[in-house]
Amino acid sequence: MDHTIYLDNAATTRVDETVLAEMLPYLAQNYGNPSSSYSYGRVARIAVENARRSVAYQLGVKAANIFFTSGGTESNNTAIAAAVRDLGCTHIISSPIEHHAVLHSVEFYSQLHGVPYSMVAVSDAGIVDYDDLERQLKEQAAAGRKCLVSLMHANNETGSLLDVKRVGALCQEHGAIFHSDCVQTVGHYPLNLPEMGVHFISGSGHKFHGPKGTGILYIAPGLTVKPFIHGGGQERNMRAGTECVHGIVGFARALELAMEHYKTESEHIASLKAYMKKQLAANIPGVTFNGPEASLYTVLSVCFPKSEESDNLLLRLDMEGICVSGGSACSGPSGGSHVMRALGKNESCTTIRFSFSKYNTTTEIDHVTEVLKIALGLHTAEGKPATSAC
Amino acid sequence: MDHTIYLDNAATTRVDETVLAEMLPYLAQNYGNPSSSYSYGRVARIAVENARRSVAYQLGVKAANIFFTSGGTESNNTAIAAAVRDLGCTHIISSPIEHHAVLHSVEFYSQLHGVPYSMVAVSDAGIVDYDDLERQLKEQAAAGRKCLVSLMHANNETGSLLDVKRVGALCQEHGAIFHSDCVQTVGHYPLNLPEMGVHFISGSGHKFHGPKGTGILYIAPGLTVKPFIHGGGQERNMRAGTECVHGIVGFARALELAMEHYKTESEHIASLKAYMKKQLAANIPGVTFNGPEASLYTVLSVCFPKSEESDNLLLRLDMEGICVSGGSACSGPSGGSHVMRALGKNESCTTIRFSFSKYNTTTEIDHVTEVLKIALGLHTAEGKPATSAC
Repeated sequence: MDHTIYLDNAATTRVDETVLAEMLPYLAQNYGNPSSSYSYGRVARIAVENARRSVAYQLGVKAANIFFTSGGTESNNTAIAAAVRDLGCTHIISSPIEHHAVLHSVEFYSQLHGVPYSMVAVSDAGIVDYDDLERQLKEQAAAGRKCLVSLMHANNETGSLLDVKRVGALCQEHGAIFHSDCVQTVGHYPLNLPEMGVHFISGSGHKFHGPKGTGILYIAPGLTVKPFIHGGGQERNMRAGTECVHGIVGFARALELAMEHYKTESEHIASLKAYMKKQLAANIPGVTFNGPEASLYTVLSVCFPKSEESDNLLLRLDMEGICVSGGSACSGPSGGSHVMRALGKNESCTTIRFSFSKYNTTTEIDHVTEVLKIALGLHTAEGKPATSAC
Repeated sequence: MDHTIYLDNAATTRVDETVLAEMLPYLAQNYGNPSSSYSYGRVARIAVENARRSVAYQLGVKAANIFFTSGGTESNNTAIAAAVRDLGCTHIISSPIEHHAVLHSVEFYSQLHGVPYSMVAVSDAGIVDYDDLERQLKEQAAAGRKCLVSLMHANNETGSLLDVKRVGALCQEHGAIFHSDCVQTVGHYPLNLPEMGVHFISGSGHKFHGPKGTGILYIAPGLTVKPFIHGGGQERNMRAGTECVHGIVGFARALELAMEHYKTESEHIASLKAYMKKQLAANIPGVTFNGPEASLYTVLSVCFPKSEESDNLLLRLDMEGICVSGGSACSGPSGGSHVMRALGKNESCTTIRFSFSKYNTTTEIDHVTEVLKIALGLHTAEGKPATSAC
């Protein structure tokens, strides 16, 4: 897969070689079970606890409030189940553009415990209507109901960002529990969780050059919740099952690297996004961009005008070795995007999500732009750019 | 950790180098998300589905009935939750010597859904009383209650084995759902699941030289259950969350290797166990062995007579670089063993579990025997073995 251009970093990322090097000793050498009291066990335990301390430090919280899970989805499930089951939440407020890991969990636990849910209004650009959120919080509080608010920090399809501090403050004001799916922002922004006013956040290692199969759940101090997975006393009785030591070590190292190089890497990635936006606007007539102007710097969601050519765009790009997504990977190849439906985008657009990483280059973007022009029948024999309609 | 002797293979095992080599390409190279439709995604999807087919083949079932999870504990939780929630089970029968991943899940889902549970009687050696099981199944069926029977294939502490076919037949006769925690037997015995009469089994990769963080759940054909983790449509809507591709590939390769070399490796390991048993019996006065004569060939549970020396045995062995366990790793260093308590062993014994792998040797066992003799104050200046009291 030598000449592949990978622009789907919101779906998953390449494991950084430094991360991999850190993980390897915990597979075939230091393979002890962290619950074992002897040497090999202690080496594994130290690795897990050092990882926890490191992750906690990066997020501005105490190690005791970080729990390792099998991924962002499990973390989301754990938080939502716990809020309803253990924290007395009798109403759930979420949004129609959440990831399925939140939406389907909200639906499931709502039904299981007989707790209703409602959706906040969201603008065409994917921005939560904070007035509507406040109105709903007031209404539920007035009716004596404690709310769980589950709103994602950054949308994985459009890149729209939540004003988490504002939501955190609203939740505090109305006595609500606030969970934020931060799968697209942990490892992409320096986050200070206490300042965000969150009770739970979810993060996933494979979204920022860590390994698949490892996530974190932050649980704010003072919350007493039951485990989601029952069994041994791992993770201080919060998450049973032998710790995936190599995955945990990889998660922590990936987060350390991401934060260490945040400034240069985020600038690089943001410039790639801006460059691609400019190139597309200049070369593809009628192209528009989903999501607000100020959005996640890693994601560029593009609306190509519907045409015979644009219908086959994903396939054409794939044939040219270009990896991009029509929506989120979890929607699968044919399911369509519930996010784009919620934002009313499906009819007029062929939506392609380009998402960037530190490994991408402007040369790649130039090449993708050329391929897009050919695929959309816009390439002129002289190689001159077509006039932009934007 | 050069001179360490690792005899705690029931807790976790060293990842086989061949397994690791198979996993590596799915971290830093073929890192696609299996849900993505383009090249990188397809490579990952093919890896996951090939792994599923391989695991299914080894267990004598169809690929459609194998689901990848984050480990044996999650698999156990999934099966028990599903049986109570989705399959109409209104009574649970389990045993007091199950792993906490079963016992605590039984307790939790019993309480959540208001479904009572009962325990089958177990002999001193850890053998399930099949007559008691049959009596309970009859009684519950007569009262119109559908049972979930959750009994482990091999006990992780004593090595006692369940007659799964007998339990499968009893469950079929009385219309019960049968789940078996096979974490100690998947990868250690050739299993043919349809012949075993199970509806669910759980397996864990890190118990047979695969990676931590990956398990399987088998769900028998014809059972319709909801996912345990909600979100994206992964694992055919049965287990949400981006697949841990490298872990899944590692699980499958470890199982292939284990079954390919089963005859020679199991004979080697069984001979190590027999050799150690003989050496201990010959050298340690008063030593006895927990579990029945015919038991899991990987586990030797030893009862050392209580003494001042035996109280510190684990620590002494650790100081000599010998990794063994007092119970299961999940019980932790100080919690004591609920299994040994259930079998009435705690009072008279210092129990040490020795568990073997293909990497162990008789030389290691000779060394451990010598260390034990010294630690227990039995070593004679002439190096002659003490007379055995057994």
